[in-house]
Amino acid sequence: MHQDMTTPLLSPPAPSSDLLLPEGLQGPVVGILGTGDLCRSLCVRLVASGFRVVVGSRDPSRVRRGAFPDGVEVKSQTEAVDGAERLVFAAVFPEHYGSLVGLRDRLVGKVLVDVSNASGLNRKGPSNAEQLAKMFPQTPVVKGFNVLSAWALQNGPHDGNRQVLICSDCSDSKSLVVQLTRRLGFTPVDVGGLGSSGSVEEAPLLLFPSWGGPILTSFLLFLFFYGYSCTRRILLPYLDHGQNNLYQLPLVTVNETLPAVAMVTLALVYLPGVVASVLQLSRGTKYQPFPDWLDRWMCSRKQLGLLSFLCSVLHAVYSLCLSLRRAAGYTLTNAAFHQVKAGVENSWVEEQVWRSDLYLSSGTLGLGVLALLALTSLPSVGNALNWREFTFVQSGLGYVALTLSIVHVLFFGWDSAFKPSSYQFYLPPVFVLSLILPCCVLVSRLLLALPCLAFRLRKIRRGWESGRRTCPSGDDGGDV
Amino acid sequence: MHQDMTTPLLSPPAPSSDLLLPEGLQGPVVGILGTGDLCRSLCVRLVASGFRVVVGSRDPSRVRRGAFPDGVEVKSQTEAVDGAERLVFAAVFPEHYGSLVGLRDRLVGKVLVDVSNASGLNRKGPSNAEQLAKMFPQTPVVKGFNVLSAWALQNGPHDGNRQVLICSDCSDSKSLVVQLTRRLGFTPVDVGGLGSSGSVEEAPLLLFPSWGGPILTSFLLFLFFYGYSCTRRILLPYLDHGQNNLYQLPLVTVNETLPAVAMVTLALVYLPGVVASVLQLSRGTKYQPFPDWLDRWMCSRKQLGLLSFLCSVLHAVYSLCLSLRRAAGYTLTNAAFHQVKAGVENSWVEEQVWRSDLYLSSGTLGLGVLALLALTSLPSVGNALNWREFTFVQSGLGYVALTLSIVHVLFFGWDSAFKPSSYQFYLPPVFVLSLILPCCVLVSRLLLALPCLAFRLRKIRRGWESGRRTCPSGDDGGDV
Amino acid sequence: MHQDMTTPLLSPPAPSSDLLLPEGLQGPVVGILGTGDLCRSLCVRLVASGFRVVVGSRDPSRVRRGAFPDGVEVKSQTEAVDGAERLVFAAVFPEHYGSLVGLRDRLVGKVLVDVSNASGLNRKGPSNAEQLAKMFPQTPVVKGFNVLSAWALQNGPHDGNRQVLICSDCSDSKSLVVQLTRRLGFTPVDVGGLGSSGSVEEAPLLLFPSWGGPILTSFLLFLFFYGYSCTRRILLPYLDHGQNNLYQLPLVTVNETLPAVAMVTLALVYLPGVVASVLQLSRGTKYQPFPDWLDRWMCSRKQLGLLSFLCSVLHAVYSLCLSLRRAAGYTLTNAAFHQVKAGVENSWVEEQVWRSDLYLSSGTLGLGVLALLALTSLPSVGNALNWREFTFVQSGLGYVALTLSIVHVLFFGWDSAFKPSSYQFYLPPVFVLSLILPCCVLVSRLLLALPCLAFRLRKIRRGWESGRRTCPSGDDGGDV
Repeated sequence: MHQDMTTPLLSPPAPSSDLLLPEGLQGPVVGILGTGDLCRSLCVRLVASGFRVVVGSRDPSRVRRGAFPDGVEVKSQTEAVDGAERLVFAAVFPEHYGSLVGLRDRLVGKVLVDVSNASGLNRKGPSNAEQLAKMFPQTPVVKGFNVLSAWALQNGPHDGNRQVLICSDCSDSKSLVVQLTRRLGFTPVDVGGLGSSGSVEEAPLLLFPSWGGPILTSFLLFLFFYGYSCTRRILLPYLDHGQNNLYQLPLVTVNETLPAVAMVTLALVYLPGVVASVLQLSRGTKYQPFPDWLDRWMCSRKQLGLLSFLCSVLHAVYSLCLSLRRAAGYTLTNAAFHQVKAGVENSWVEEQVWRSDLYLSSGTLGLGVLALLALTSLPSVGNALNWREFTFVQSGLGYVALTLSIVHVLFFGWDSAFKPSSYQFYLPPVFVLSLILPCCVLVSRLLLALPCLAFRLRKIRRGWESGRRTCPSGDDGGDV
Repeated sequence: MHQDMTTPLLSPPAPSSDLLLPEGLQGPVVGILGTGDLCRSLCVRLVASGFRVVVGSRDPSRVRRGAFPDGVEVKSQTEAVDGAERLVFAAVFPEHYGSLVGLRDRLVGKVLVDVSNASGLNRKGPSNAEQLAKMFPQTPVVKGFNVLSAWALQNGPHDGNRQVLICSDCSDSKSLVVQLTRRLGFTPVDVGGLGSSGSVEEAPLLLFPSWGGPILTSFLLFLFFYGYSCTRRILLPYLDHGQNNLYQLPLVTVNETLPAVAMVTLALVYLPGVVASVLQLSRGTKYQPFPDWLDRWMCSRKQLGLLSFLCSVLHAVYSLCLSLRRAAGYTLTNAAFHQVKAGVENSWVEEQVWRSDLYLSSGTLGLGVLALLALTSLPSVGNALNWREFTFVQSGLGYVALTLSIVHVLFFGWDSAFKPSSYQFYLPPVFVLSLILPCCVLVSRLLLALPCLAFRLRKIRRGWESGRRTCPSGDDGGDV
Repeated sequence: MHQDMTTPLLSPPAPSSDLLLPEGLQGPVVGILGTGDLCRSLCVRLVASGFRVVVGSRDPSRVRRGAFPDGVEVKSQTEAVDGAERLVFAAVFPEHYGSLVGLRDRLVGKVLVDVSNASGLNRKGPSNAEQLAKMFPQTPVVKGFNVLSAWALQNGPHDGNRQVLICSDCSDSKSLVVQLTRRLGFTPVDVGGLGSSGSVEEAPLLLFPSWGGPILTSFLLFLFFYGYSCTRRILLPYLDHGQNNLYQLPLVTVNETLPAVAMVTLALVYLPGVVASVLQLSRGTKYQPFPDWLDRWMCSRKQLGLLSFLCSVLHAVYSLCLSLRRAAGYTLTNAAFHQVKAGVENSWVEEQVWRSDLYLSSGTLGLGVLALLALTSLPSVGNALNWREFTFVQSGLGYVALTLSIVHVLFFGWDSAFKPSSYQFYLPPVFVLSLILPCCVLVSRLLLALPCLAFRLRKIRRGWESGRRTCPSGDDGGDV
């Protein structure tokens, strides 16, 4: 009987006794201060997970009971705090925290959970949770659940972001909330003391934090190549002989810029791996940490790869649009006019046919391989791969895509890189510029695959360190 | 020792004692009546989750034991019911429920779980579970697990639909099955009493229930625009001057219809949000529920958006096919013929070049943005976004896509909307019709972004109500 | 009190007592031998799940503590083994297992978990785990966790492959590790005794094992059709009248081969279902197992379908590239030249316009349907479908795609299959060959839909067997 009374506090489906005593099955009571959308969603989730909930409102008479699931009691704030066994959620906007001061004494012995978000990024001063902790010095405050939307809370972990960031200065209270999080079906992530609450509160406000650098990089590359292309195709011809090429602005120069951005961005995906290998080789150990910029670069490779794929797809669509342009029609009928005037029965140039077929072919295949790479970036596809498959796709297929792209550009260029006429105004064509970095990366990678270097690198990656006594049996260098 | 005997009923991996007493580790015994595919899959899952299973067959001697995992006993039906500690699954087709009547007395004190599906939609009369409950008045009946396929059951939650709908009139029995569901790794969803069992039984028969309305809407839009386009391009020219334009039926008119459907459908995605904002503004509160039709419309936005994307992609592919058409070749060589006859050396029309480049460019970009939107509709991608990212993509990028689409059509139309020759038979071209709704939505959204309206709307969405005493501290209106 | 001491061994968040006794909350101690990447990731995961960890190093003084999360003790190997309550992980490369021999006596009473991978596929001799078991005859060895990458371990189940294969000859020790796996958030899969450890160790080295057969099949089909097309278009014309068609190698013949491969591969997706139905019909039962080759073929349908989709997409992109080819421009201006010379004002051929519009249209629609099919192959999309939706998409839409593809090819062929000029060198065109199998599958499927056959098949699939006493009430044939 004693067991019976103590058991059902946090774990309504207590595994050991519930089948024997189903009639006594009662979850612990959790309190929530506030009656807004988040409160309601929290109620739905808590009740669905077997908890009992008491909601504290300033004015319980004005609350529509229908908005809450069955089994939720709506009472006054003091009654709610008293009714809660241990946990009380503060689901009130931070600007109204002052109204909770009167509950100070009743909250002693309870744990207060702050679920609020920051009002903006980069604020000064204490976080919401820190303000709450200051107001209630005798009540441990835990920050958590703010990263979940009301929608994700209500619909459970299968329809939303699973991770819940949690922090508190009281480890016992924190472990309580960690358990609750697990019971609700989410994955708790302990991020330390209340000092971290500021960044936890800002987490839901961040806008694709891992994409900032890669997007900026691609954008700057786009600006550079677009400016270069416009200068070479439009500005200089106009200055030189007054030719008006402005019509090339919206499509032709963009379609010359996009593949260049795609190529260089793809090279930037594989460059940090090469740099890391060179560093490990020259240091003779893998245990020395990489410089910060290299670590951050390595973490941006997926984003850079996807941006490269985006540019490639846009380039492909723009290129396919080329034959839909009015300009294409005019060019063709004008060519026909001249052919008729010149009396040439057959204008066929075998070399040009080969060139266009080869670059279209290699470009299509390269795009196809890049698409497979992008596909494995989808979480649900990537998760289904084992480590070797992931490496094969990301590294093996990645270099195939890089090689095919380079081949595509080389066929496109054919022999024009060696003709002076391509160097109008002494400026090399865009495709020549775009080849430099990808070719360097590919050549470096091939050099690293030379047996002498590859063997040393493999040893280092298995834990061997140069200049250290080798101890083949049981040395820590032999650990997985 | 007492603890040892009582513990392992529903929780084979009972967390407290198993490390100390691993040799005594024995899961509770669950009974299953029936030996079909679902029974076998259920066995695999139960055994994998640590339960013991006894299968009840009408003729145990005819059952191939190899079809069941180790540890499953195949016995007679009466022995299976007797052997089960609490739960007995009825895995028999509903038309054979009559054969279970003889087990009535033995089933007293057990819980019967009905896993059957409805035989069809919109049946009259009691559900399968209700029939079973009537047959066994002294045994509580729980409906559940029918939404899982044998495949999902056998392979566990990572390979199938995670949610399991459960209902019963006996809450203790229901909580038992809820726990079992969790132990098997699925997410139980309590849908109430046995009165809901009819809709639970029909759930696996539903065919994309959330897609019906959106698909019908798009289809009707398609019919309208296709009919209009055919009338204007084919029927009226034939009636008027006997011109045979029938060859435009399979591709040209379809490709004129698709972008119109895509535009209007995309506008329908953003219209309900505008309507909701206007309602909230005029009511001065967010606490009054929306009319039903608006709620349903809001829930269909994702589907409408994906259908709009589908139409856009088809339009893009059809458009890219235009230059592959034989008709395109004939048109070009005929144009060349006339250019030669007229002696025009250069047919270049700068304005038309600009026009085509601009609408191709804006169309490509609009499609790209729509593709990003569609990408975040993939569950595994959308789940990785936080609330702000989701809003940015769905609302921000959505309006960018709408704007780009409108710009695409405006460039396509150029000045033809102002030329009388475009209004053959006094009918405006399709693209003019398709612009009306999108432009209205865009203008309304811009009006709602005016500071005076935007501020009031923001206040309302944070809980403020017009005509109500404002209480800045702790008012329920200040709850998250 | 006794309960209090025995409780927290494997289950730090023991649901029954932690709310009452949060200050005593201490997870069980797990030992890890080795300090490499996997060890560190294992530490992170164990600590995050509430365990305490003691790491055993050969030389604890050389280990950077910062690499481990708080609460992890780094000690000597003997201390680590002594400190572990029950479980000790061996996170050392197999070639260094010899160094652990000295721990033999201290490991008695503990369970050793081997997390190593195979050094290569198809090795001879005992597996790593078997070697370890031989070295420590008095310590049960469990194989597991090797299928998780260090990355997946560190970041938890939401970012990686969820399944963990586990095997051991000691079922008590195995159940311990199974529980631990669940606590860490992964899905344990019991694969039997230590005899299976060889294949468990090889699992992470496998490279898309389910794709081998389908890729080989598609590749052989590609080789056959490519060879055939090259013979017919390039080799024979050269041998016959010295015509040089080599320029067709990179694009034209490839684009003739791809749709043929796509068609036949798509037919291969639906052929095994037809064969299975015929087998069931002729045997009169569904309880006789299918031959092995048919089972394997059935399991490859998804892969075959995706390869067919890949070929179709490549064919579409290649086809759209056709108008970008230089050859297309030359052909058009030459045609214009001849039209002018012949004085034909209008070269329009209505039939050819119809033909090209119809095959472009049906091809686009077929590709769209195939794309929807491919979309539901994404795990996160497929998991959201119920069984009826899945069947509708895979079977219903699949046959629609097959039919549209056949229609596409028929329109492409138009009447050329009946013209002797299409049979150069007595060889039928590629498209005729590619139609044979798809048409056979489609016709067979239609025959199986005849009421007499369909009814009998439906009965068999519900469990009826021909030549067996039918017992409508409760017969095992009536089980779900």
